[in-house]
Amino acid sequence: MTRIAIAGYGNLGRGVEKAMAQNPDMELVCVFTRRDPASVKTASGVPVVPMAEAASWTEKVDVVILCGGSATDLPQQTPEVASLFNVVDSFDTHANIPTHFAHVDEAAKKAGKVAFISVGWDPGLFSLNRIYAESILRQGSTYTFWGKGVSQGHSDAIRRVPGVKKGIQYTVPVPSALEAVRNGENPQLTTREKHTRECYVVAEEGADRAQIEETIKNMPNYFSDYDTTVTFMTEEEFDATHTSLPHGGFVMRSGITGDGTKQLIEYSLNLGSNPEFTACVLVAYARAAARMSAEGQTGAKTVFDVAPRYLSPLDDETLRAHLL
Amino acid sequence: MTRIAIAGYGNLGRGVEKAMAQNPDMELVCVFTRRDPASVKTASGVPVVPMAEAASWTEKVDVVILCGGSATDLPQQTPEVASLFNVVDSFDTHANIPTHFAHVDEAAKKAGKVAFISVGWDPGLFSLNRIYAESILRQGSTYTFWGKGVSQGHSDAIRRVPGVKKGIQYTVPVPSALEAVRNGENPQLTTREKHTRECYVVAEEGADRAQIEETIKNMPNYFSDYDTTVTFMTEEEFDATHTSLPHGGFVMRSGITGDGTKQLIEYSLNLGSNPEFTACVLVAYARAAARMSAEGQTGAKTVFDVAPRYLSPLDDETLRAHLL
Repeated sequence: MTRIAIAGYGNLGRGVEKAMAQNPDMELVCVFTRRDPASVKTASGVPVVPMAEAASWTEKVDVVILCGGSATDLPQQTPEVASLFNVVDSFDTHANIPTHFAHVDEAAKKAGKVAFISVGWDPGLFSLNRIYAESILRQGSTYTFWGKGVSQGHSDAIRRVPGVKKGIQYTVPVPSALEAVRNGENPQLTTREKHTRECYVVAEEGADRAQIEETIKNMPNYFSDYDTTVTFMTEEEFDATHTSLPHGGFVMRSGITGDGTKQLIEYSLNLGSNPEFTACVLVAYARAAARMSAEGQTGAKTVFDVAPRYLSPLDDETLRAHLL
Repeated sequence: MTRIAIAGYGNLGRGVEKAMAQNPDMELVCVFTRRDPASVKTASGVPVVPMAEAASWTEKVDVVILCGGSATDLPQQTPEVASLFNVVDSFDTHANIPTHFAHVDEAAKKAGKVAFISVGWDPGLFSLNRIYAESILRQGSTYTFWGKGVSQGHSDAIRRVPGVKKGIQYTVPVPSALEAVRNGENPQLTTREKHTRECYVVAEEGADRAQIEETIKNMPNYFSDYDTTVTFMTEEEFDATHTSLPHGGFVMRSGITGDGTKQLIEYSLNLGSNPEFTACVLVAYARAAARMSAEGQTGAKTVFDVAPRYLSPLDDETLRAHLL
């Protein structure tokens, strides 16, 4: 039994708790929180422990799955917790990965722990598809598309617009761009040509809708470089329609071999729930972290460093006989 | 520089030779053959060496890429060559993998060599997608579809039918079956519901076409369990149309998380040339074999045992900064 603790009990933490129920070789021991533990009630009934007391759980937990955010939580939390436990995080600020890796690596090596960073689907499964595809098709172009799915950052941006009561944003890949890549056209695609942004908004009573739409569409970084649609709806309709957090996307490698032979590798995800799926990836890598730690490995690692066999609950002979 | 030798100079061996040109960190040293070396002319001009003299090349070659067939060549050849060199093969008789692994493992361990078996796309990349997807989505169903592409075994079977001058067979996935999986219907699919078989035939002059068609369609194991079409054509048309060896396929995992949330992982290949693509996979794993051997690893391995980082010519920092 691999003994797991969850740090942070939001959407992702609850997703990990649900995923644990599908992995009978793993056991959820507790949830660490920075909130008042009395205010946190876990679905499974496992104890809720103040983060400050985590150090007293080192003998009872094999891997901590860190479920905080990349902006402020993980840069501080992952190195701290990696000095006590094997950890897995889903740090996803691509530009800051090298710095995060260095900090976590130092803490984990010092403590003799394994620390997986940037586990999830992008970074994570999409990264795996990029490295496999680019290592195999050396000559070619790689394309990553996201969606259709909810972007939390863009949804937050909408909700900060004056007059917006509720809002959600879906990132949508442009079908003709996907087709051009699939056809081996190796297109040079601008930001606008790759994705559109669909916004659904409930306006405050009396708010100027035309003004809201203009403000959203012209927002730099978030929307101004995209073809953006803004659809207003009643609160009832919004609450009935936009309850889940679907996401997904595509990684494609269009390459050439020999004398101009076209070869295409495509990977895609169509996820009913982004946090529940990300949680499943974290749990599989927690299994790997426990095993690699047991073998004496230490330091920060990414999905690039993990042989697939470590992720599966099945033994090597079964894997070769049934999955190879 | 990783120094590579090719054993067997057919379609796959020639594909490896072409792939080497796209991998400047690797060098093709020679081709080993069981034929008369004088009868084999390599495109790149590297020397052709009798297989029986391979032992005198152990100091000049880091990895031998075995390009023989799975039916009779590799079961004998892989253990033999693995007693002298690190090797990579594309053994693809799924049912015999455990036995092949055991033989190769014994030879490679004894010699202190690394031997990758069953490298390619199925087994190989499709296997990787099965293990990743099943390790992540623990509850669900996995589907593998092949095609559209040329099956060599089925094409050979057609060509053995009396009255057939030339023949080729394409395996084609049934579109409605793919859609049912994508929709999360978790269908139970019979052999007939998953794939159709399209045959293109040039008949000998005066041959009974109706008889040929009947014989093909009723052939047990190969065609009788499928909806099979047989299309006759002139030799000119055949030679103009059916010159390449395209292939591909799909691995899909349709799963459930949490309280019935649907999640779909899909991987697909659309390959202009099956042997050229398989060759590229073999070359990437040859890079990994050289590295893992240099680290002191020995014995038989499969794609499940290889961390993705070993496949790429890029260093770890570059990988984290640009592909993660």
